[in-house]
Amino acid sequence: MSVTAAQGFSAAGVAAGIKHSGNPDLALVVNNGPRTAAAGVFTSNRVQAAPVQWSKQVLSRGAVSAVVLNSGGANACTGPDGFDDTHATAAHTARVLGHRADEIAVASTGLIGVRLPMDKLLPGIETAAAALAADGGDQAAVAIKTTDTVHKTAVYEGEGWSVGGMAKGAGMLAPGLATMLVVLTTDADLDSPALDAALREATRLTFDRIDSDGCMSTNDTVLLLASGASTVVPAAGVFADAVRTVCDDLARQLIGDAEGASKDIRIEVVGAASEDDAVEVARTIARNNLLKCALHGEDPNWGRVLAAIGTTRAAFEPDRLNVAFNGVWLCKDGAIGADRAAVDLRGREVRITADLATGPASAVVWANDLTAEYVHENSAYSS
Amino acid sequence: MSVTAAQGFSAAGVAAGIKHSGNPDLALVVNNGPRTAAAGVFTSNRVQAAPVQWSKQVLSRGAVSAVVLNSGGANACTGPDGFDDTHATAAHTARVLGHRADEIAVASTGLIGVRLPMDKLLPGIETAAAALAADGGDQAAVAIKTTDTVHKTAVYEGEGWSVGGMAKGAGMLAPGLATMLVVLTTDADLDSPALDAALREATRLTFDRIDSDGCMSTNDTVLLLASGASTVVPAAGVFADAVRTVCDDLARQLIGDAEGASKDIRIEVVGAASEDDAVEVARTIARNNLLKCALHGEDPNWGRVLAAIGTTRAAFEPDRLNVAFNGVWLCKDGAIGADRAAVDLRGREVRITADLATGPASAVVWANDLTAEYVHENSAYSS
Repeated sequence: MSVTAAQGFSAAGVAAGIKHSGNPDLALVVNNGPRTAAAGVFTSNRVQAAPVQWSKQVLSRGAVSAVVLNSGGANACTGPDGFDDTHATAAHTARVLGHRADEIAVASTGLIGVRLPMDKLLPGIETAAAALAADGGDQAAVAIKTTDTVHKTAVYEGEGWSVGGMAKGAGMLAPGLATMLVVLTTDADLDSPALDAALREATRLTFDRIDSDGCMSTNDTVLLLASGASTVVPAAGVFADAVRTVCDDLARQLIGDAEGASKDIRIEVVGAASEDDAVEVARTIARNNLLKCALHGEDPNWGRVLAAIGTTRAAFEPDRLNVAFNGVWLCKDGAIGADRAAVDLRGREVRITADLATGPASAVVWANDLTAEYVHENSAYSS
Repeated sequence: MSVTAAQGFSAAGVAAGIKHSGNPDLALVVNNGPRTAAAGVFTSNRVQAAPVQWSKQVLSRGAVSAVVLNSGGANACTGPDGFDDTHATAAHTARVLGHRADEIAVASTGLIGVRLPMDKLLPGIETAAAALAADGGDQAAVAIKTTDTVHKTAVYEGEGWSVGGMAKGAGMLAPGLATMLVVLTTDADLDSPALDAALREATRLTFDRIDSDGCMSTNDTVLLLASGASTVVPAAGVFADAVRTVCDDLARQLIGDAEGASKDIRIEVVGAASEDDAVEVARTIARNNLLKCALHGEDPNWGRVLAAIGTTRAAFEPDRLNVAFNGVWLCKDGAIGADRAAVDLRGREVRITADLATGPASAVVWANDLTAEYVHENSAYSS
């Protein structure tokens, strides 16, 4: 049910003709209220697509009545003309729905540096508006796919309220890959600051901790809209857990469907002096191309983990580091530990544990391996 | 002639049986004086192999009478036992040559986390010592190869003096890949501080500015030895240029022979506020996997260059950035410029120019593309 699991929302996904393939490429998510509270987080890339620039302004007022999303073009690095296109998209959506343009968020994904075909996009908005339905969440989730092989949705059911969401992309928020777009909806009766607090904490621990290929998108967008239609006001902690649960589910789906990947790699750093240290070390391991290749080859090459850790600024002593693959401690005190032959890396999921032996903090980052298929998918055509 | 181009040096390369393949794997470079001045720079990785730990101590005294190098094993992450192996290597070399152990530098390259077969390495030193020759430079260069497809040497001829060198590895100094080992020799009559100044400036502008795959080795070592045998004392600027010329030549050879690469990518950042900004931006572009894949596919995907620039802390305004591929400005003022069709990326060398339009500083970093062959080479077996 995706973004229409919560009461008060309708959605649609249609083929507007933006993609040459003729696949669905335009999604609309409408908040029918009574509230139109919203929060958003965006890419930390300093080169930001026109829809990100626009939607940040919209979200700064904390109210979103609808989100229009397109695949088939990122509308990034398109200059003032591209911003005009985003503005026209919001204005047209507002006219069609009878809302104000400054309450319409816009998100785009696809190739950077190409203008959107507005002659197809604007009529597509009308088609999508006509197709809006209280069970349209799955159609919307399908229409935002690019290189995704499956559409991604998640739902959390609270007591009389719920949180639902959809996502596309094979990477992360900040930094983020291949554009990650996420729309979450809830019928909980919460205001914009409450949504914002829950969303920021959830993204910090979920989307911010997946790292498929270390590349940060110009378009990453995560929105949380509240209709208030349930009239239930959940406790802040309960709501935060719900949002985090949905984000975690979607984040894992993104890693599980990353471009060309054959492994989902869970990197846990323990014994760190601080959470920041743990995240820095985990992310550095996650981005090491040599290690990512080794894992693709199912080789528990722990030396590449140590070489990666050694490039960080985290607090540790090289001769106290310990590293495990799937629970087998191959490296103890910075030197040779258990026999590599004891490790079986044939499963899709691989667990790496790096113990800095310095303090009490820890963090988990999810990553993917590096494969010939990734190279092919990102070299054979523009994306 | 490599490390034996300069007067006062002899060298040898032999097969000691460290590599299972039976290929040459042990090299010896001996400084016959009258001077034994030396300088060295080493990996900035905090996890450092035993030979790096040892050789840094040796170089701290500024005198090196011989360097013993092995391929077939990095002796990294091998703990106190591994350090004992390096110590024994230096001590045995000293005994065989009639020198002091604390003037013997050691360098190793190969798999991390495996002990060296000392029962083969120590007799190999005796074989190498017996094979030392005034024209042994090429044999030494061959013996330090790992995944290198060709051995790498360079020579600069001064007036009555020269600088020669050999290198192995497919990456860079700091950070560095797959272990880069370089030995440079000169018969110029210079002391250790003079060598050190020339070497640091040269490596900063050459080995430090190649970035094949963003991965930093635990073993990178660059040594410069002076015999003084020419009795010529070149001017500091002339000598610095000579060392830089040899380093630049070897650095380009490393990029040209990087693992699995099909493109040599010259990334020049201009219009930067500072040289540090220019290097940061160039290195970030150099490490973007999506761009590296696109270049492998000969796709001038300038959007990925902008997305990479946007992740840096350098001074720039997104709407003033300009990017050229092979001299064609595809991105102007952060938006769409010339037609992509005007760019031909079929050659081995690709030139990317990124203009930050902020200041007068510039820098060049060389990189490689990302290919299925790179993945294969680094996943099919431990290395």
